[in-house]
Amino acid sequence: MPKALAFDVFGTVVDWRSSIIAELEKFGRRHGVDGDWPAMADRWRSGYAPAMHRVRTGELPWTRIDDLHRMILDELLAAAGISSLSEDDLDHLNRAWHRLDPWPDSVEGLTRLKNKFVITTLSNGNVSLLTNMAKRAGLPWDCVISAELFGHYKPDPEAYLGCADLLGLRPEELMLVAAHPSDLRAARGVGLQTAFVYRPREYGPDQPPPRLDDGEFDFTATDFLDLADQLGT
Amino acid sequence: MPKALAFDVFGTVVDWRSSIIAELEKFGRRHGVDGDWPAMADRWRSGYAPAMHRVRTGELPWTRIDDLHRMILDELLAAAGISSLSEDDLDHLNRAWHRLDPWPDSVEGLTRLKNKFVITTLSNGNVSLLTNMAKRAGLPWDCVISAELFGHYKPDPEAYLGCADLLGLRPEELMLVAAHPSDLRAARGVGLQTAFVYRPREYGPDQPPPRLDDGEFDFTATDFLDLADQLGT
Repeated sequence: MPKALAFDVFGTVVDWRSSIIAELEKFGRRHGVDGDWPAMADRWRSGYAPAMHRVRTGELPWTRIDDLHRMILDELLAAAGISSLSEDDLDHLNRAWHRLDPWPDSVEGLTRLKNKFVITTLSNGNVSLLTNMAKRAGLPWDCVISAELFGHYKPDPEAYLGCADLLGLRPEELMLVAAHPSDLRAARGVGLQTAFVYRPREYGPDQPPPRLDDGEFDFTATDFLDLADQLGT
Repeated sequence: MPKALAFDVFGTVVDWRSSIIAELEKFGRRHGVDGDWPAMADRWRSGYAPAMHRVRTGELPWTRIDDLHRMILDELLAAAGISSLSEDDLDHLNRAWHRLDPWPDSVEGLTRLKNKFVITTLSNGNVSLLTNMAKRAGLPWDCVISAELFGHYKPDPEAYLGCADLLGLRPEELMLVAAHPSDLRAARGVGLQTAFVYRPREYGPDQPPPRLDDGEFDFTATDFLDLADQLGT
């Protein structure tokens, strides 16, 4: 059994897609602009991995997710011909990522898991984003750990090993919980335990199931309640 | 009004002295050794500032508090002629600093303050110490920020400014809450707001009151409930 669980956040704990679509719709109504908000939400999210890649390869200096989200947003709004927004409005919209709603099982599942394990975030989201999100959504973290603390985005090894080190644990005493096989494989590669949680609607209604090898991860769960059952808490 | 409150922990949130004396007494009973446990608690604590000073001046590389506590403990036990303890026993005793009890008003006061502000630790204690302490004592932090994240102990400016930066705030939007004027003066020197909380029994029963200039800090409170009253929450 691990001593602590580190959770990927976007997609694993919170439903970024529905939340961002709702925020964009609200934004459109407030400013009297129309748009294909689901498509814009997907493009906003899909700009994120390439932007992080530019940081990971050193093309950009360390840049927190808030600022990467803003770079992508500015491009999307320009491409959609939406202009003349105030800086306050843009900043509020960009901080939609601080206001993501959890999956229905997240708060109850984390609360159960917290009874037996130290539970922390291990997200590429910056500390203030994760802190504001948790406060609004009632996510009961024991602590808030972010790639920002290491200056290395996942899947760089420094993020996983840095998390274990901050918690005073050996890598094998820490388990990453994530909905993304690539994240889990990188964690496993540096010695962490792994738990895959299936989030079939992360990318919308018609998403193909991820391809996993049999027994590839230490645990495979349908949601956080199932994971709590399997971990005996 | 600040947007977030950062709390010094040892002495401000938790009663380290009574807790450490109780842990040393328990240790003595378990191992059948006698000692002047209050004096040893005070010496353990008083070894901490000089040890941090060696890190701050570069004489020692970055060393977390757990390891500084252990260096001091080993010297104290040797001086007291207490030997032949197992590594597990020594580690358990050293982690007494992860098991400190809060002052009677701390949990209720923090819970009230959390309704209006982001509340975080800003302690020289390492992340795992602060996380374990909070979990055991029920301290409801929104996030756990430590000098360890910056490689700089308070009162180095990097600790105060780093905390504001992680929270996405300007220094003047953050308020340090502490029982120690020297900590508050360093925070004020780099632009933070300050709240002094009087903890008359931190160092035991006969402690002289600290000397403060009139109006030196933005708030002066008798405990966290008084601070919550003054901050309107």
